[in-house]
Amino acid sequence: MISVSRRVVFAASHRLNNPEWSVEKNIEVFDKCNNPNGHGHNYVMEVTVSGLPDPDTGYVIDLKKMKRIINQYIVDEVDHKNLNLDVPFLKGIIPSVENIAVVFWNILKDKFEGKELTSIKIWETENNVVEYKGQPVNIKQFSDFI
Amino acid sequence: MISVSRRVVFAASHRLNNPEWSVEKNIEVFDKCNNPNGHGHNYVMEVTVSGLPDPDTGYVIDLKKMKRIINQYIVDEVDHKNLNLDVPFLKGIIPSVENIAVVFWNILKDKFEGKELTSIKIWETENNVVEYKGQPVNIKQFSDFI
Amino acid sequence: MISVSRRVVFAASHRLNNPEWSVEKNIEVFDKCNNPNGHGHNYVMEVTVSGLPDPDTGYVIDLKKMKRIINQYIVDEVDHKNLNLDVPFLKGIIPSVENIAVVFWNILKDKFEGKELTSIKIWETENNVVEYKGQPVNIKQFSDFI
Amino acid sequence: MISVSRRVVFAASHRLNNPEWSVEKNIEVFDKCNNPNGHGHNYVMEVTVSGLPDPDTGYVIDLKKMKRIINQYIVDEVDHKNLNLDVPFLKGIIPSVENIAVVFWNILKDKFEGKELTSIKIWETENNVVEYKGQPVNIKQFSDFI
Amino acid sequence: MISVSRRVVFAASHRLNNPEWSVEKNIEVFDKCNNPNGHGHNYVMEVTVSGLPDPDTGYVIDLKKMKRIINQYIVDEVDHKNLNLDVPFLKGIIPSVENIAVVFWNILKDKFEGKELTSIKIWETENNVVEYKGQPVNIKQFSDFI
Amino acid sequence: MISVSRRVVFAASHRLNNPEWSVEKNIEVFDKCNNPNGHGHNYVMEVTVSGLPDPDTGYVIDLKKMKRIINQYIVDEVDHKNLNLDVPFLKGIIPSVENIAVVFWNILKDKFEGKELTSIKIWETENNVVEYKGQPVNIKQFSDFI
Repeated sequence: MISVSRRVVFAASHRLNNPEWSVEKNIEVFDKCNNPNGHGHNYVMEVTVSGLPDPDTGYVIDLKKMKRIINQYIVDEVDHKNLNLDVPFLKGIIPSVENIAVVFWNILKDKFEGKELTSIKIWETENNVVEYKGQPVNIKQFSDFI
Repeated sequence: MISVSRRVVFAASHRLNNPEWSVEKNIEVFDKCNNPNGHGHNYVMEVTVSGLPDPDTGYVIDLKKMKRIINQYIVDEVDHKNLNLDVPFLKGIIPSVENIAVVFWNILKDKFEGKELTSIKIWETENNVVEYKGQPVNIKQFSDFI
Repeated sequence: MISVSRRVVFAASHRLNNPEWSVEKNIEVFDKCNNPNGHGHNYVMEVTVSGLPDPDTGYVIDLKKMKRIINQYIVDEVDHKNLNLDVPFLKGIIPSVENIAVVFWNILKDKFEGKELTSIKIWETENNVVEYKGQPVNIKQFSDFI
Repeated sequence: MISVSRRVVFAASHRLNNPEWSVEKNIEVFDKCNNPNGHGHNYVMEVTVSGLPDPDTGYVIDLKKMKRIINQYIVDEVDHKNLNLDVPFLKGIIPSVENIAVVFWNILKDKFEGKELTSIKIWETENNVVEYKGQPVNIKQFSDFI
Repeated sequence: MISVSRRVVFAASHRLNNPEWSVEKNIEVFDKCNNPNGHGHNYVMEVTVSGLPDPDTGYVIDLKKMKRIINQYIVDEVDHKNLNLDVPFLKGIIPSVENIAVVFWNILKDKFEGKELTSIKIWETENNVVEYKGQPVNIKQFSDFI
Repeated sequence: MISVSRRVVFAASHRLNNPEWSVEKNIEVFDKCNNPNGHGHNYVMEVTVSGLPDPDTGYVIDLKKMKRIINQYIVDEVDHKNLNLDVPFLKGIIPSVENIAVVFWNILKDKFEGKELTSIKIWETENNVVEYKGQPVNIKQFSDFI
């Protein structure tokens, strides 16, 4: 198996807030990330699929197609958006980078022409990055946009 | 003269909108940047001061002090904030990266212990950057937070 | 004046060869860059225009438009191309990064809606970069594609 | 086990073309990468070997030696070359980055003084990267340089 | 499981020298890294912990806390220090980047609030990096600071 | 005129200390940089020369030659060295990055085959950089290695 990764970038705002908690507890836990009017990031995402290269092309997957798929299902939906308020598939989800990675995984996992999605990495800043490889994870969904 | 630059990073959200224009015109001009709920960036800023090094230290300016000054006056005020709604010194200013650079310049220009501020560069994304060197620029200030 | 820069990337191949010189002299001068079948780079180009921001937008120039202009006149013509053989406006020009910068300048200089083009930087590798600011430069044009 | 990686860079040109296909099908599948005169990249390669560090040196492998080995067997052969026409060990291979990684693996796998080669990553652009870890992969070899 | 990584940077000097070897053998093996007065690096370290995100926060671990832990136990001890002479927990250890990674692992492995430390990567230069994942490794400890 | 820049990297250790000052004053002024056993950096240097390209080559200067000159006069002398103790041309100089830039300038200014040296930039860390363009600067030289 060979892994093939495509990097994309999107600019979005978000706020971390648990609607079941008091204002004080949210500030205590999320600190600056709880700012009521939000803040933002240039998110960098690297999506990896794995498989055998096609002998006739030498491609595991055409990276141009892979880019179009990631753009269609993810980047076009989240770029220049507020992750708390504007994205239907993030409705009611605390938009931590861990949760975002899991949601994106569930959307992308069966979109790559039969090739296996094997990793999603998302850098929220140049110093913070998460990687998700598809193991079952329990995400809490609140009843409305947060 | 020797130039000494310090790089800092801050994460903020913003929205580009001219309150004197119609919704349609704002969308036409600002496109995705006009999204009502905003979006965000990891802004990278490089502040440069110039002068002669002190023979006793070899420093034009102590970069640790320079960092503290930039953090005190700028980063602590804008990091994890909404540039339209949370920052007093940006009140009524369309937070384009050009305008932000000019406002930051006016705040920082006399703060570096007599050394001359000679450049502020701000990267909004890895592909977009502005540089301001202090020439007179006319910024429009609207009457309230935008 | 404020400077606004847009970074773009293009992948191209080239060969450095002076058709008026012997094979031996070309190898002596250009060394590996004279390889008859060529080699290639991911060129990174940063185009800078300068001017006053429009008070109604805070923009010196709309960076989305700037990107479209650079793509239309330069990137679409050189990306995934052989700079010696495929690009009409480089016909007969030794495609050194210095010469490329001058040719691109002459194409772009009057394309930015009245804003002044003030710099073109091109990185050929992560270690080599040239910057051209529009001073008169004499480029030799040979009679055919090189 | 500890993994030790060395990054190297090489500049090369290539063209993706399947000689058993029509011109039309090659253009349809490979698009810009099928340009007859080729294009190029600054390839970045990270080679990883794994093992136990020698207690007398603290080294898994001397990185200076590792660099020399990678340069001798790979970089000196492909840097400033046309991957389709100039490299004996790529003869008849479609030079996709997946195929290149597999060929390089087969050359390097037994060269590191008994230490195990565990990964080859190659970035073709800043957005596209493949990783190969040595699982059996079937590469098609055509009868002549492509 | 989701992996969460934090990047930190520290500036330190070191010298590679085996006190049981002759001057000549040390020079032969360690070459420039054996310079008697040492040399230095900006080390970049990426520490990774893995676990399930807390449904109430969306966090595997609070990255602000993770940063404080790494700074308290590692960065504050090694930044702007000589790794051979100034760091108690490196006493008698040849400060190769492999050995440093193992020592840091042993210090950090039980510090992350019950979350599992799963990787430490350290870049000594932009071209050289090691990764350690906690498998048993035998490090030689000499009797005094080296 | 066109500017041509070459980036090089060297790993060195240093200590900032004014031998005419008390221990207390040195600690107060230089803080962590005064650590008696030193610390170190991966210094990144970008050297720029400017001139007209040769019509026969398209080169302002052959970048391969430029690299050899920088390596011969600077990198080979400072890489894997202690800047306070090992480098004759830095003897008695406080090795601040400002002072280093001035010393390197004086060595390099007449070495580039008649082309004009126009800038030396040195990054001490990813956040700190100085630029020197050759204006007269007074550096204090103490009587012995510091």
